Order: sequence, then C-alpha cells, then structure tokens
Amino acid sequence: MKTEAMLLVQTGRPLEMAEIAIPALKPGQVLVEIAYSGACGTQVMEQRGLKGHDKWVPHCLGHEGSGTVLETGAGVSKVKPGDQVVLSWIRGSGIEAGGTIYDWNGRRVNAGGVTTFQRHAVVSENRLTLLPAGLPMDVAVLLGCAAPTGIGSVVNVLRVLPGESVAVFGTGGIGLNACMAAALAGAVPVIGVDPNPHRRALAESYGATHTIDPGVDDPVAVIRALVPHGVDAAVEASGQPAVMEQALKAVRPQGGRAVVIGNARHGATLTLDPGLFNQGKSLLGTWGGDVVPDRDHPRFARLLGAARFDVRRLLSKPYRLDETNQALDDLAEGRVGRPLIDMRLA
Amino acid sequence: MKTEAMLLVQTGRPLEMAEIAIPALKPGQVLVEIAYSGACGTQVMEQRGLKGHDKWVPHCLGHEGSGTVLETGAGVSKVKPGDQVVLSWIRGSGIEAGGTIYDWNGRRVNAGGVTTFQRHAVVSENRLTLLPAGLPMDVAVLLGCAAPTGIGSVVNVLRVLPGESVAVFGTGGIGLNACMAAALAGAVPVIGVDPNPHRRALAESYGATHTIDPGVDDPVAVIRALVPHGVDAAVEASGQPAVMEQALKAVRPQGGRAVVIGNARHGATLTLDPGLFNQGKSLLGTWGGDVVPDRDHPRFARLLGAARFDVRRLLSKPYRLDETNQALDDLAEGRVGRPLIDMRLA
Repeated sequence: MKTEAMLLVQTGRPLEMAEIAIPALKPGQVLVEIAYSGACGTQVMEQRGLKGHDKWVPHCLGHEGSGTVLETGAGVSKVKPGDQVVLSWIRGSGIEAGGTIYDWNGRRVNAGGVTTFQRHAVVSENRLTLLPAGLPMDVAVLLGCAAPTGIGSVVNVLRVLPGESVAVFGTGGIGLNACMAAALAGAVPVIGVDPNPHRRALAESYGATHTIDPGVDDPVAVIRALVPHGVDAAVEASGQPAVMEQALKAVRPQGGRAVVIGNARHGATLTLDPGLFNQGKSLLGTWGGDVVPDRDHPRFARLLGAARFDVRRLLSKPYRLDETNQALDDLAEGRVGRPLIDMRLA
Repeated sequence: MKTEAMLLVQTGRPLEMAEIAIPALKPGQVLVEIAYSGACGTQVMEQRGLKGHDKWVPHCLGHEGSGTVLETGAGVSKVKPGDQVVLSWIRGSGIEAGGTIYDWNGRRVNAGGVTTFQRHAVVSENRLTLLPAGLPMDVAVLLGCAAPTGIGSVVNVLRVLPGESVAVFGTGGIGLNACMAAALAGAVPVIGVDPNPHRRALAESYGATHTIDPGVDDPVAVIRALVPHGVDAAVEASGQPAVMEQALKAVRPQGGRAVVIGNARHGATLTLDPGLFNQGKSLLGTWGGDVVPDRDHPRFARLLGAARFDVRRLLSKPYRLDETNQALDDLAEGRVGRPLIDMRLA
C-alpha cells in the first residue's frame, strides 16, 4: 500500500509531496488513516534547519494529529481497527515500537514513532490515545501538542491557583492554550505578551485580561505596574532566551515561577542573573507540559470543550496536505494560531 | 545599657570590636542576650565586599543565633522575658519592626531586623522563634540559617522522596544540612561534590554515600556513571554560576530538578543551554529553603535531634566574640563546617 506524504528532503528547502510505500507493521505499530494534522514551531525549525544538523533526511514529519486506526501490529492492545485516535509526540502507555522506514521509489525515508504530514502513517502504540468522547476530530489535533504543552504547563507544572496572576510570553498556539488554561484555572490577571497584533488579539479572545506589545513597552515594567513585585507565574512560549530572562524577571520574589515551553534554537545560550534564584524565583522546564496522555487527555478535552472559549478559532482555516509549506510559513509569520491540515481536502 | 559587638566599619577590612549603646525598644522589638551566633558565607561576602556597594557601614552583622529574651517592646506577644529563642534572618510570625540604630560614641551604627555578632541585640519580633523543646542552645544556631536553607531545600523545595537520587554541590554548612536531610528523607545515593577534602569527609559523616572531588573528576560524568541519565534532584550550595550549570546538567531529563541555595557574587552571570529546560529539567530558586519558621522549626529540630547524625560535629569548636574574624576566615577557607561563636567565652 502506498500513501502521500510531505517530506523534508533537504534542510532549508520546501517540503516535497511524495508517494511512499507503507511497510508491514512491526510489533507495537499501528497503521492510522490521518484525518487532520496540526503543525508546530518545531516543524518550522526542522524545515529551516534551526535545530542543528539533521541526519535523518529525507524524513516524514509532523507530531500532532487525529485519525482512524486501520490495522494493528502484534502485541497492540490499546487500540483496534476503527478506533478514532489522537496522535501525539508525547509518550503514553503502550508499546514503544520505535521509528519506521518507508520506501520512496527505492529511497529510504525515515520516520519517528509518530509523523502526521501524510495521509496514512505507521505510529508507535504509545503515541496514540483514544479520542475523548465528544471531542471533534479537528479540535482533537490540539491534544497532540499545543494543548498538553500549553495547558499542561499551567495546570501540571505551574499548578496555577485561582486568583494567582499569570503572564504568557508568546501567544502562538501553545501560548494561547496557556492563556486559556490560566483563565479557566481562575488566574487574574492573565497578561499576554506578543509583538504580533493578530496574536495579541487572539490572546484577548482566549482569556488574556491585558496584552503587551514588547516592541513598544518593556513587558517587565508593565507587568510590575499591573502586579506589584511581579506575577505569581509566567509561561515562556517564544523560545527566545532573552524572553526566558524576561519571564523570570517578571515573576515575584519568594515563590514566583516561570516555565519554559518554547524551543530554543540549537546552540542558543541563556544568560541570567543568578541572584534571581537567591530571591526565590524558579525557572522550570517541562517535557510536554508534564502530561501523561492517558490520564490528562479526558480532562484537557473537557477544558477544550468548556463553553467559555471557542477553541475552533485557535485553528486556521483548513489547508490541503499539499499546502503544508504555506501552513508552516503562515505559522512562522504569526498569521494563524495553529495550522490545521485536513487530509480529506483534495 | 551598652554591649559589645563586632562591626563592619569598612568593607574589606576586619570587623572591629566596639562598645555600642542599646536604644530604647520600638514597638515590635525585642532585646535578646545572645548565647551563640553562627556565621554564614553571607557575612564573609559582606565583609569582603562581594555583595556590591554597602551603603550601611558601619553596621552590625550576623544573621543566625540563639539567646534569651531580656525585654520586649510594645505589641510583642510571641515571646516574653526569660524565653529561650532562635534568631534567624528568615521572617516568621509577629511584628516586622524594621532595623535598629545603635550609638557608638556618637556615631550611628546600622543594624537590620536581626544581627548576632554581639552580646546583646535588638531584634524584630518576626525573626524570633521559641527554642524547640530539647534542642541545645548551641545546636540551635543551625536553625537560624544552615538548617532551614539546607534541610528546607531538600524537604520543602525539592520535596525529595524515598529512593530518589540526590547530588549536593558544595558541602559546607548548608550543603551538609542538605546531605543529611537527603539521607533522612531516604535518598539513595546521596552524592557530595566539593573540592575541599575536609568538607568531603564531613559529607560522608552526614549521609553522603559517595563524594566527588571536582578538581580531579568531572562531577557530571561521575554522577551519570553512578545514576544513568542523571540524579532526580540536586542542591547547589557553592554560589558559583559554573556549578549551578553543573547541577542542572547533573539532573535527569523529564522531571529532574536542581535548587540554587548558594549566594552568587554581585554582578555574576549564569550562562545555560536553554535546551536543558526543553528536556524537562528545572532550576529552582528559594528564599531560605521556603521555610516558615513557626511551622518548620519543631520538625527540623527533630531531624537535627535524630540519633543517626551527630549534628554538633557540624559546628566548629567555639570561638570568642573577638575571634569572629578568625571564624569568618576559617569558614571561607573550608576549615570548619559552621562556625560557632560563644558569647559566654571571655
């Protein structure tokens, strides 16, 4: 069986549409017909070569999606053919089956345990979770990355309490989920910081009570004017070291905490005043919002389904698979919140 | 009434013994006859000018001790004359009465809310806690700083669980308390890192199952050899930015956490790979081990009193008040764990 996929053939070049042959399933692998894929800054960085040397090209990519199980390999017990599933780079329960090699007219194409810029994908069992009841398949792509990372950073890592103050630096797809989670957790105020006016407007739709344009105002100064001594908690979702420093400065002494969820470029360095730690401020890291998919997806799906926010507006209008390069460019330029690639569009 | 105090008169010069006049108590202040004072790296840094410009000279110093209440100012309800108390820089319940001005032959001498390098001191009510039952007055000086910071970093900040692995960078007075707390919390292994052989030997007496000389071996490499992928938690008690970086590198991805309790020199910078945070490692700050004195002193006193470790050996042989400069030098050179100044020695 063959399928269509958008491949990274050469770093720095647009992805290329290819027809690739699907290999027989290994134990623990699952063949999924992809319905929707999202796209993340990570893929922009991969395509542009900002994550360092890429030894895997040509390879499949995309790490969040939704779809339907077509076939399961030996040992798979978590899903069965016909199940609707969420695909995520975050590991859950089930077999870790490793990556896959597709054939592209005699050329080897690498793929990790989950890839989604393609109509069908061989996925490791532990990257799949059953679609939570009531969650539409398009919105479900958010559960693959932006929601666990953004919501998880707020509810699992920062553990924001009602009445705490929160600042979110970078209000793209992940930052918007963080804004929404902070608002749903009862944070007041929720302050969104982003140089892009479209993203600031989106932040205001997703729970931000205030927004700051860091190209105009010093965000740390504005935050301290709003919340004396600084906010209780901050989310850094831009991936820029200078913004990570701002996030740590923006939190209060004696217990303020900032979490880094933005991915820094390969080789970047972060320079901080170590005295900030002596003041009792913490800089937290996280791997996917400390999410345990099997535990957290139902809860996060309820948050995504809360009537207070229309999460479908977080998603772009649907792109066709062959428009994936446009989707990545629109993401990089801040023209969309989270790109949605619809495999059923011809 | 007059008393003797060791004053910092000029940054970079030895402390000077002075006879100072005690002013009338303001509301919320307490006059304490000091029994014992400890000494901390903070005072070494103050004396040597490593905390930046000091606008308060001449001033009293010392921030941990034990003593007996002689007199209380208006509004004080936490202690009464005759009570034995612990003095600490960490604020607890009670009135924040601010600092004090002593008179030194017509010259103003500044003092903060608590100072201890003197026979009698005017102390703000909220820096005093009643001596826990059964705790000797000399050991009690540890409750003023080294124990809350060292033990608190392990039990309040890192929240070390039985069976977790812990590395402690810098095994002076605070680091030794961290080693002991890790061992008492059930951590295995407990790895002490210190270039000073005396401090490494002390670490082995206080719960370290392994020690590393960073002048000989790369501590991150040795720690990874002992604990694949890195330790669960690390304590940084040296105050050196390069060691803070090592501590963060030494913890495992996806949940490893390092806490900074060492004080960095004024103007120091900490340079980190931001990708460490994307791996899910966290660098935590703390203000005094997140200790709430009124809540934590009884518990920490029980840990200090646990028969497993002889905490008195953490303390130096007693110095006289006029030997305080020697105490600071011995501390700076790593010749003692925690200096003990005994006001009753003539």
